[in-house]
Amino acid sequence: MSYCTATYRLYDDQADFRKKADSIAVGMTVGSWTELPQAKRESMQKHLGQVLNVDVHEPEGVKPGERYADITIAYPDVNFSRDIPALLVTVFGKISMDGRIKLNRLGFSEEYLSAFPGPKFGISGIRDALGVYDRPLLMSIFKSVIGLNMDELRDQFTRQALGGVDLIKDDEILFENELTPIEKRVEVCLKAAEAASRETGKKLLYAANLTGPTSRLKSQAVKAIEAGANALLFNALAYGYDVLHELSSDPDITVPIAAHPSLAGAYYPSRHYGISASVLLGQLMRLAGADLVLFPSPYGSVTMPREENMAIRDELMTGSLPMKASMPVPSAGIHPGLVPLILRDFGQDVVVNAGGGIHGHPMGTEAGGRAFVQAIEAAQQSIRLADYADAGHPELKAALEAWGEKR
Amino acid sequence: MSYCTATYRLYDDQADFRKKADSIAVGMTVGSWTELPQAKRESMQKHLGQVLNVDVHEPEGVKPGERYADITIAYPDVNFSRDIPALLVTVFGKISMDGRIKLNRLGFSEEYLSAFPGPKFGISGIRDALGVYDRPLLMSIFKSVIGLNMDELRDQFTRQALGGVDLIKDDEILFENELTPIEKRVEVCLKAAEAASRETGKKLLYAANLTGPTSRLKSQAVKAIEAGANALLFNALAYGYDVLHELSSDPDITVPIAAHPSLAGAYYPSRHYGISASVLLGQLMRLAGADLVLFPSPYGSVTMPREENMAIRDELMTGSLPMKASMPVPSAGIHPGLVPLILRDFGQDVVVNAGGGIHGHPMGTEAGGRAFVQAIEAAQQSIRLADYADAGHPELKAALEAWGEKR
Repeated sequence: MSYCTATYRLYDDQADFRKKADSIAVGMTVGSWTELPQAKRESMQKHLGQVLNVDVHEPEGVKPGERYADITIAYPDVNFSRDIPALLVTVFGKISMDGRIKLNRLGFSEEYLSAFPGPKFGISGIRDALGVYDRPLLMSIFKSVIGLNMDELRDQFTRQALGGVDLIKDDEILFENELTPIEKRVEVCLKAAEAASRETGKKLLYAANLTGPTSRLKSQAVKAIEAGANALLFNALAYGYDVLHELSSDPDITVPIAAHPSLAGAYYPSRHYGISASVLLGQLMRLAGADLVLFPSPYGSVTMPREENMAIRDELMTGSLPMKASMPVPSAGIHPGLVPLILRDFGQDVVVNAGGGIHGHPMGTEAGGRAFVQAIEAAQQSIRLADYADAGHPELKAALEAWGEKR
Repeated sequence: MSYCTATYRLYDDQADFRKKADSIAVGMTVGSWTELPQAKRESMQKHLGQVLNVDVHEPEGVKPGERYADITIAYPDVNFSRDIPALLVTVFGKISMDGRIKLNRLGFSEEYLSAFPGPKFGISGIRDALGVYDRPLLMSIFKSVIGLNMDELRDQFTRQALGGVDLIKDDEILFENELTPIEKRVEVCLKAAEAASRETGKKLLYAANLTGPTSRLKSQAVKAIEAGANALLFNALAYGYDVLHELSSDPDITVPIAAHPSLAGAYYPSRHYGISASVLLGQLMRLAGADLVLFPSPYGSVTMPREENMAIRDELMTGSLPMKASMPVPSAGIHPGLVPLILRDFGQDVVVNAGGGIHGHPMGTEAGGRAFVQAIEAAQQSIRLADYADAGHPELKAALEAWGEKR
């Protein structure tokens, strides 16, 4: 017998959690059990959910509304097909609406995993593409691109590229538009990337935002790739994990996919409802084949608790899955003064990703990139940023003056 | 200029909500404004979001954590493509992760709506298919179908059909499986429906669950339709609204689609986060073309506040949209004793939908259907159920004895 598992946190002041767990295990699989005749039970046994664990949190003096239990249920693989919608509907479809309950973790069986090749490139493939193995990567985000024409876009791209970043990504709110359609902006930006590369000596990946009707995403992607695209950005949650899975596992999609967390905040921030960030942006993004995964960092403007961030990182990178690791990209409000914290928490396999922290640099976008390059150099050598700034790195110095250093 | 709008509720104890609204209007559109040179502002004006309303809720003695504002922002249509992912990413992509914020309402421009034909059948088309115009419809849900073989499935279908229901729907956790693949169960059930029709004199729609990989959903649907399917069930949230939209607007999908609310509880129940039920299960389901929309009722086992339910109903049926109305299907824990309440709240254009309230009837599934038929007859004539039960309707009488009458 092979099972996938789901772990929930249920809040209830009175419930018999053991009974509640049994009712989930039965209700979300065979529907009823005690009323089944014995002969029927035998044939249905293989379809019956199993309660693996019920851990009640009920200390002395627990406040009303705060009594909870962590419950793990095993769902027989034989009940659902090998796709993410089927798993999610099975483990959280109906019960998401039944009381205060949050889905906190999934467990995938080998059998289920066999349908998911995972990231085509992953951390190793992205490093191969860039030829960079010994340091964190640096990504820059286009800023204020709506309404820009191709010349303005190229200009902004070039300034980012000359700063020495490894990746540049589209703004996730840049959709197909007449001024900068995907195949044209890919062509223009990649040409600009080549020119910049001759100056910086660095390779560059440009993640172009893949948008439009679901059924045309693949042809859009292929069009972009034919125009030279070497990466794609994708609003995975707005389309559904299965769409990401089908794109990432398609042999014609020959470039890494960066998954944007757009809309994730509709699910994860509540304590009592929804789906945890580590399931949404960790487990499911990797399962669906995202090569890079963006998520709010615990350092910057759009924040997430550090513990939750570390849980995402662990799910993206754990060696216990038979697939490549996805590259974590903690984002939002990142400036050079945060780089030592990012490296402390994520180690070397991380993308330092900045928008305002690059474009808003007092000396301009190009200097903004350089300041990050310098911050990464310093942090890797465990040199204090302020000291490194003083040792002939004026861009870093200006960044620290603007935003400070967080330690 | 043409805009779509989004209304949020933001909770914050200190924020200057007017400033916050401005920052959303700028940040989610042109990115920056005050630092733009005048010439640039002129060309960017048409892309700039507009604050339409800021309504601060701050009575005397408001508790910490409970100060909020309702904020409406207008987003220029020129910024995004005519698809649901683009709209959602634009209005809630990034800011869903930025503090305590809930998306409570959308407003669609005529221009945006022009890309959405809406429900192909809607209330009127479903009534035409059934030939029933003067009463609420009655739907029955398969129960405990995982692991059933075709004979067992047919048997359960027949018992439901003979009870006099108008629609029968698959369990949403019934995926493609060897025992009862969609084209075979459609064939078997529709044959059983014909046989039952000869006894009841009623037509019957059977909504078969459409599952599997996204790219193969259309061919699955066509296969089911070729096998005789006259309706489909679809876990819209597990796949994404755009997938529903593409299916519903496809000329080859010639049958009504019932959208299941599976996973909706991951978004709507929190006061502080997520997306309201009336957006999720009202506005977006209708926009995406669902002919019937299931949602938790305020009466039964899986509950939702009545006000929220009425908001869903209003969005599904409002005459202010240039598209057919979707049929509301308040569900979960419905028994015959609730029928008068359902009719009071929804009027005649509603599907009374029951699972346990039919299969769990003391006299069996067939009697369970009859009890509902009788309850609807009574409620339409404003006869008390108990009186109608006593007037020669033993099935209704048994149902009321089992579950009572709620008034």
